[in-house]
Amino acid sequence: MKFVTAFYKDQTFVGIVDYEETGVLLLNQAEEIRGGKSDFPASMTECIALGDTFIEKVNDLLAWIEKQGAASQLYLPLKEVTLLAPIPRPEKNIFCVGKNYAEHAIEMGSVEDIPEHVMVFTKAPTTVVGPNELVLNHQNVTNQLDYEGELAVIIGKRGRAIKKEEALDFVFGYSIINDVTARDLQSRHKQFFIGKSLDTTCPFGPWIVHKSMITNPNGLDIETRINGEVRQTSNTKNFIFQIEEVISVLSRGMTLEPGDIIATGTPAGVGKGFKPSKFLRPGDQMEIRIEKIGTLRNVIEK
Amino acid sequence: MKFVTAFYKDQTFVGIVDYEETGVLLLNQAEEIRGGKSDFPASMTECIALGDTFIEKVNDLLAWIEKQGAASQLYLPLKEVTLLAPIPRPEKNIFCVGKNYAEHAIEMGSVEDIPEHVMVFTKAPTTVVGPNELVLNHQNVTNQLDYEGELAVIIGKRGRAIKKEEALDFVFGYSIINDVTARDLQSRHKQFFIGKSLDTTCPFGPWIVHKSMITNPNGLDIETRINGEVRQTSNTKNFIFQIEEVISVLSRGMTLEPGDIIATGTPAGVGKGFKPSKFLRPGDQMEIRIEKIGTLRNVIEK
Repeated sequence: MKFVTAFYKDQTFVGIVDYEETGVLLLNQAEEIRGGKSDFPASMTECIALGDTFIEKVNDLLAWIEKQGAASQLYLPLKEVTLLAPIPRPEKNIFCVGKNYAEHAIEMGSVEDIPEHVMVFTKAPTTVVGPNELVLNHQNVTNQLDYEGELAVIIGKRGRAIKKEEALDFVFGYSIINDVTARDLQSRHKQFFIGKSLDTTCPFGPWIVHKSMITNPNGLDIETRINGEVRQTSNTKNFIFQIEEVISVLSRGMTLEPGDIIATGTPAGVGKGFKPSKFLRPGDQMEIRIEKIGTLRNVIEK
Repeated sequence: MKFVTAFYKDQTFVGIVDYEETGVLLLNQAEEIRGGKSDFPASMTECIALGDTFIEKVNDLLAWIEKQGAASQLYLPLKEVTLLAPIPRPEKNIFCVGKNYAEHAIEMGSVEDIPEHVMVFTKAPTTVVGPNELVLNHQNVTNQLDYEGELAVIIGKRGRAIKKEEALDFVFGYSIINDVTARDLQSRHKQFFIGKSLDTTCPFGPWIVHKSMITNPNGLDIETRINGEVRQTSNTKNFIFQIEEVISVLSRGMTLEPGDIIATGTPAGVGKGFKPSKFLRPGDQMEIRIEKIGTLRNVIEK
């Protein structure tokens, strides 16, 4: 299942995109047509927080639709809705793993930059934008805007001191994040937060793929193109710290909650890594594709 | 005006503490008794977001109480309510300025650690606890738990690219934060986030003092005592980056929002700064006093 947050007729809905990625089922709308009381929460975070109950309710609805042969009436053309970020306003900053691919750590400095321990910084919730939303060029504050394609993990269940072996049980699903970064601010201010938190610098989506569709998140092809040119191409099997370890380390003394978002780090090939560097320019088109998830597209403001 | 979030008879109220700090006026309760419809929002963040309207409504209520001579009936003894953190669950991470007092930067390393640019990291919203709430000892994850007394700035108005000269107009008020830190995790994980975000490591309160009561926030005495022993004693005039500059730098490309919290950095005298070091131990009592605000007290879990 691919879960979206969709804007349609002045309302925000949680929905499901179909297999062909051409239709969308707005859960509450469908449930109303079915005649039941439509009690899916309006926000993705609340849906996720329902836990297994949410998935059961969705499965129940889908089974009814199939039995009735009602899909053609209930699914809207995807083009008729506006997809927002799957979680348009996270309830805390996005957790981001720094330098989680060895080759990226090297391109940012040298072999000595390969971390021995999980490194985590955050992006403010005000950075989040959805698929196809504009990313501000921020030309008055940075000359070094850069892209970072990343697999995002969405937490499904509250937990602290989560063991590695159980970590994936705490995941709701997976998505894509473009961790757009102002490199000059990132190095000037030492701690990464300021260079990572300019408004609109966290494109996120287009949907959350439920974990039942991805058996091994540590083995997905990932590719970033800028204006069609391949810049980053790797596989999440190259993580230095696999998802299970990141969840375990993060939750050692800090409670993870449903709807928490972890960006897992970016592979080699960022703009700063090229000689000469290839920073983003106004009008640039960014595309991040991750196997089994889809493609996240955004353009830099002209 | 000193604004609190208080828990009383199974409900959470925004209230005002009186001059003697012995009584509390629960705004909605008082407004109901007055006979008006009680439309103060239930949460501090929503109250702050009302802007000047909120302060006008409060002043109107206080004027009515004075005119009626009704204070003795309307104020509850402060001891009868439980004070929570003024904003018990912030809607994003707490912004924290690193090394904002030269002597603290030196005690953490050397003169070379004095930053040239504002350094910002964050603490997760799950770290927040109120006055007198227990701080977990986290003995299974750290041997180096440390205190950091800090002036907190609460943002009152939405803004981006805020000029230094106008920065204080965007402030709602001031409070106290104890930026409890696991020093071993802070250095092991390079970026500060993990060492700063253990559950319960952000005691916050006891109230927010409205900015009208503090003309110069860059000139307040600040003192931290552990088990009665003075450890930190300074004045916010020693900030490397004054509050106006912090707000200006933070907001250059990132929108600040009502209810945002900025911890402004800690002076010299943290546990790690002593030879030998004086880290926190189970049962330790921490007290941070800031001039014109009050005292924030918390104990480490035994």
